[in-house]
Amino acid sequence: MRTLVLLVSVPLILVFFSGAQQAIQPGPLNLMPMPSNYQLTSDQMAIDQSFSVSLTGHQEARLDSAVQRFLRNLSRRTGMSLTAQSADPAQAKLLIHTDQASKEVQEPGEDESYSLEVTPSGAKLSAPNPLGTLHGLQTFLQLVEAAPAGFAVPVINIHDTPRFVWRGLMIDVSRHFIPIDVIKRNLDGMEAVKMNVFHWHLSDDQGFRVESKKFPKLQEMGSDGLYYTQAQVRDLIAYAHDRGIRVVPEFDMPGHSTAWFVGYPELASAPGQYQIERHWGVFDPAMDPTRDRVYDFLDEFIKEMAALFPDSYFHIGGDEVNGKQWDANPQIQDFKRSHGLKSNNELQAYFTKRLEKIVSQLHKNMVGWDEILTPGMPNNIVIQSWRGPGSLAAAAKQGYRGLLSNGYYIDLMWSAARHYAVDPMSEATADLTPEEKRHILGGEATMWSEYVGPETIDSRIWPRTAAIAEKLWSPSDVRDVNSMYARLAQISWRLDSLGLTHNTDYIPMLQRIANDEDTAPLQVLADVVEPVKGYRDQFARFKPTSTDPLNRLVDAARPESDAAREFSNLVDSFLAGQCKDAALSARLRRLLTKWHENNLEPLIEKSFLLQEIAPLAQNLSLISSAGLQAIDYIDRGEEPADNWKTEQLALVQQAQQPTSAQLLIMVASPIQRLVEASSGGACHSTK
Amino acid sequence: MRTLVLLVSVPLILVFFSGAQQAIQPGPLNLMPMPSNYQLTSDQMAIDQSFSVSLTGHQEARLDSAVQRFLRNLSRRTGMSLTAQSADPAQAKLLIHTDQASKEVQEPGEDESYSLEVTPSGAKLSAPNPLGTLHGLQTFLQLVEAAPAGFAVPVINIHDTPRFVWRGLMIDVSRHFIPIDVIKRNLDGMEAVKMNVFHWHLSDDQGFRVESKKFPKLQEMGSDGLYYTQAQVRDLIAYAHDRGIRVVPEFDMPGHSTAWFVGYPELASAPGQYQIERHWGVFDPAMDPTRDRVYDFLDEFIKEMAALFPDSYFHIGGDEVNGKQWDANPQIQDFKRSHGLKSNNELQAYFTKRLEKIVSQLHKNMVGWDEILTPGMPNNIVIQSWRGPGSLAAAAKQGYRGLLSNGYYIDLMWSAARHYAVDPMSEATADLTPEEKRHILGGEATMWSEYVGPETIDSRIWPRTAAIAEKLWSPSDVRDVNSMYARLAQISWRLDSLGLTHNTDYIPMLQRIANDEDTAPLQVLADVVEPVKGYRDQFARFKPTSTDPLNRLVDAARPESDAAREFSNLVDSFLAGQCKDAALSARLRRLLTKWHENNLEPLIEKSFLLQEIAPLAQNLSLISSAGLQAIDYIDRGEEPADNWKTEQLALVQQAQQPTSAQLLIMVASPIQRLVEASSGGACHSTK
Repeated sequence: MRTLVLLVSVPLILVFFSGAQQAIQPGPLNLMPMPSNYQLTSDQMAIDQSFSVSLTGHQEARLDSAVQRFLRNLSRRTGMSLTAQSADPAQAKLLIHTDQASKEVQEPGEDESYSLEVTPSGAKLSAPNPLGTLHGLQTFLQLVEAAPAGFAVPVINIHDTPRFVWRGLMIDVSRHFIPIDVIKRNLDGMEAVKMNVFHWHLSDDQGFRVESKKFPKLQEMGSDGLYYTQAQVRDLIAYAHDRGIRVVPEFDMPGHSTAWFVGYPELASAPGQYQIERHWGVFDPAMDPTRDRVYDFLDEFIKEMAALFPDSYFHIGGDEVNGKQWDANPQIQDFKRSHGLKSNNELQAYFTKRLEKIVSQLHKNMVGWDEILTPGMPNNIVIQSWRGPGSLAAAAKQGYRGLLSNGYYIDLMWSAARHYAVDPMSEATADLTPEEKRHILGGEATMWSEYVGPETIDSRIWPRTAAIAEKLWSPSDVRDVNSMYARLAQISWRLDSLGLTHNTDYIPMLQRIANDEDTAPLQVLADVVEPVKGYRDQFARFKPTSTDPLNRLVDAARPESDAAREFSNLVDSFLAGQCKDAALSARLRRLLTKWHENNLEPLIEKSFLLQEIAPLAQNLSLISSAGLQAIDYIDRGEEPADNWKTEQLALVQQAQQPTSAQLLIMVASPIQRLVEASSGGACHSTK
Repeated sequence: MRTLVLLVSVPLILVFFSGAQQAIQPGPLNLMPMPSNYQLTSDQMAIDQSFSVSLTGHQEARLDSAVQRFLRNLSRRTGMSLTAQSADPAQAKLLIHTDQASKEVQEPGEDESYSLEVTPSGAKLSAPNPLGTLHGLQTFLQLVEAAPAGFAVPVINIHDTPRFVWRGLMIDVSRHFIPIDVIKRNLDGMEAVKMNVFHWHLSDDQGFRVESKKFPKLQEMGSDGLYYTQAQVRDLIAYAHDRGIRVVPEFDMPGHSTAWFVGYPELASAPGQYQIERHWGVFDPAMDPTRDRVYDFLDEFIKEMAALFPDSYFHIGGDEVNGKQWDANPQIQDFKRSHGLKSNNELQAYFTKRLEKIVSQLHKNMVGWDEILTPGMPNNIVIQSWRGPGSLAAAAKQGYRGLLSNGYYIDLMWSAARHYAVDPMSEATADLTPEEKRHILGGEATMWSEYVGPETIDSRIWPRTAAIAEKLWSPSDVRDVNSMYARLAQISWRLDSLGLTHNTDYIPMLQRIANDEDTAPLQVLADVVEPVKGYRDQFARFKPTSTDPLNRLVDAARPESDAAREFSNLVDSFLAGQCKDAALSARLRRLLTKWHENNLEPLIEKSFLLQEIAPLAQNLSLISSAGLQAIDYIDRGEEPADNWKTEQLALVQQAQQPTSAQLLIMVASPIQRLVEASSGGACHSTK
């Protein structure tokens, strides 16, 4: 019947290429994360309009809606309208069997495995519980491709299970508020790459983002009206649950808490009034750890939030208390003395222990940043490490569970390769005993939001976070960087088709900057730059505040320039081939000529948003000229004068300095290699 | 205060270019449609985070929500977070005064004028009623640009009023169902270009798309479950009303009505069963105009719909009855004889008159396609002309009002320039008396949906419909095609920022076709092709049906290739300059080289969706080579051999034939001009 349906639905195409069918080569497997075990063949199973799905075994609403979502995504993937859900398992092209229910409230460590067997005539997905079924559906979707004979998935046998049980993404919604629909599309992205924890950083100095019915001044005075209602929170938790994702709330205490004090100054260690913080950094306000009224408040507040957020983990932050308010408060100093607390660290430990009692009385496990690990804490807490594997290993040796975030700070604008090289089980953690290693639960990518808003957050999270997701799911020997980048490029567009905007927003943002003039020259520049890396350079703006518009080229530019990486690879190939490849030489020339001749002046004159990039545009042109001259010398087999080389290298070095535009020219380094190779190097010796 | 706020919010940028401020030249006015009267200066009014709006005069909820929407769009335009609505009119940067309410149910011919006065320190928008206020807000938004000193609008004085009272867009939701959210974003687009009628083609052979509570089998059996509930319809009408847009429903009768008969075969002129039609074309089923039960049904049905749709115009279709069911039915033949009806046209006129009585009893004006104009119809009906100005003029002379759609069929894939040349007051209508001319209400762009779905409809409507909107709003002397294209390119991105997907969906669709491989080579081809024009070539697919996926390159390709138009203009400049411009010659070479060298084979091998474009890719390469050779001859001042020219022109001609891919290579014609100029032409005579 399938063939017949195909004849009816896409007959012209079938007729057109029926003579062109060739032996199909088994291609690379375009999955991210890579499954833990698979056997791939060169055969295929066709996907056409007769495609149908049937669910057997354990039944629940979440599975039905997962299948509906799966069919919607498959329709989007193929452009075919697929809605049929077959009632008869014997007829289904994709038969799904789920053994039993997962826990009502999802727990870390539940079985998330699944098996997917694809034959030429049909596929079977089996899982012990719905968590595995959800993952298997995502794998199936990623396998779908427009093959030579029609849409198809490869015939394959997959047995897949994650390496780590906690694969998280943290989003800071305090520094910039991120609306619910933006969170939702990012949950769709998480589901696609099998991440299972959404860590919601809900309060910080710059905003308190969730409705409290008991203490309404928290959101009324601490959020500029930008907060989630409890109904929205419940809806989001259900949305996440549907996708096999836990929601762990974080309320950062006792520091990072200015926004609480706008409505409730009595919680602070110094008298009010307080205003919502508009700047970035570590600020003085901190809760007063010496007052019973503070604990009474927190007891009531956490009770309310523990009921709202069903997850059995509750994050209390605990990072970066500078202690200044404590030092300046005589009553707090008295308290330290009278309680034998020798330092502010010990004072915070006192606070954390009292907080932990509140949290554990509500049957929750407390999670916090490195700072909460102090002597005498109970063993059920979880340490999230921004400091690194050393802290995690130390914690594990004492019997504490831990999560790695150091190395997964995606707001630092590092390359996917740099994040991909970070492994929760490396350095100090690699040396743990097997027993201790079980305490390393996994890791979390952290999206701090000083410089991201609803429009730009997708491009800061994706696609790089997919590489982190693979690190946390796939076996440790899945670490080939070239394979990662090849698959990342593809998954990136798949993620975009889920509604994420990291690719599709790029040109519209450039259009806005350039007043909807022809943006081609702007794109030439934007394609080879990246935002400055790390906090020092990011915070170098003159007095940045939370009301600054995120409308500059640095906001539109991608964290990682594919064009620059590809150019760098071309240069490496050229040099590795002793500069003999004429086609490569011509290709490098074409790129360098494009950059050298790119003229942004007419656009820069018109738009104030472009004036800061004038030096950048000039530098790109200058160093591209240096690169062209270097290739000239190489091609002519001529040794350049020493002062030429010195001058060019100085130019390149100067072009690598951050400018006020806060952008880096990423082709500078490979151009430097060309200039260096132009004299006395491997190229000349062989010509 | 504004300067101070600017210093706080964007200080770095200000510091950076403070030395670069130059005398500002008054640029071209980037508005579409162009206003009927304006005086533009070179001065500007700054838009910064102190921007505020105040409403005075007549107050209503629609104005408040319009201001909220305006601020949201302004925020999106600038990347600044603008939410302030000033209470004190004296402090507002944009003061809006509305004299009085418009009619509760919007009527064609209401005053839609507005005045907008922008001074360096503030702006004032005034309008007789909210319709003008809505239009003025759109004008203000279009004026905002990133100027050399910051976001700004020019200092300008505008008095604007539309040329025609009926500026419509028809969307056929029967042949492909278009979900409500897609309709809504298109209403946003209509508002942006000041269109005021959404004509909703709700029923046809391929689907009945609105819920009837009286006759539920209409949607239950006639829609595949794809229909709008009455709640959705009411919501959409409110959405349109908020944007100054009327909603005119169309139920096509007595032909184009197969979908009705699936549930109610007794309405038809031949016995059932009926199935929803899956093919395209003109089909036999037609209502039986001889049965009282048909009129009883329509009386009840139209009563229900007239209550649902408040607009005082009601479209009954009336087009393309082929008469075959009538001819084959002896009872109908008897009826014609007994009633002295000499033709099927007269029989349809009998039907239409009875229908008109039903419609006018409900205090609605009947609208229909050309065919409904038959002797003896009352003068309150409106003729929508798919036939042309001749029909309109004939109707106007008899006192009937008319709308032009001939020339505005955007599904034919014509260029914006071709639609822009069509004027409702031209040819036969231009010769009408002033009195008769008042009967020409305006026009409607028509989006028939044989080959569009939710994913592709935006790119078929926009940006070309903005050119039609200008034709219907702006004075008749606004007709410069180059100006239109320059402004259309800009408005196109503005429309995209409202949520329309005509630009942002292009690359994702190419990505899907190419399996998320590097689509650069595919884009090189896609950028210079257009879908075949007109129905004959569009319908040339082998048995197309409504279930065919719209996932081919013809679906992704834009109706109009900007790259091809620009290339054509370059060739014209080159030839007009007697081929002496070396820079132009080099530019043409670069483009032709890109097309000649473009290699799609690796992509085509992998994806069945690309196999049909192999001949197209080959043709582009071949004719680009011909173009390069032509420039070689021209540059060398050498006369090519006659047979070379004959061969190349044959190649070009062959490349212009539609292929199975249903795409046209739009650079073929300018390449032909190059080949022709290469021998004995103006170029050689002057070298």
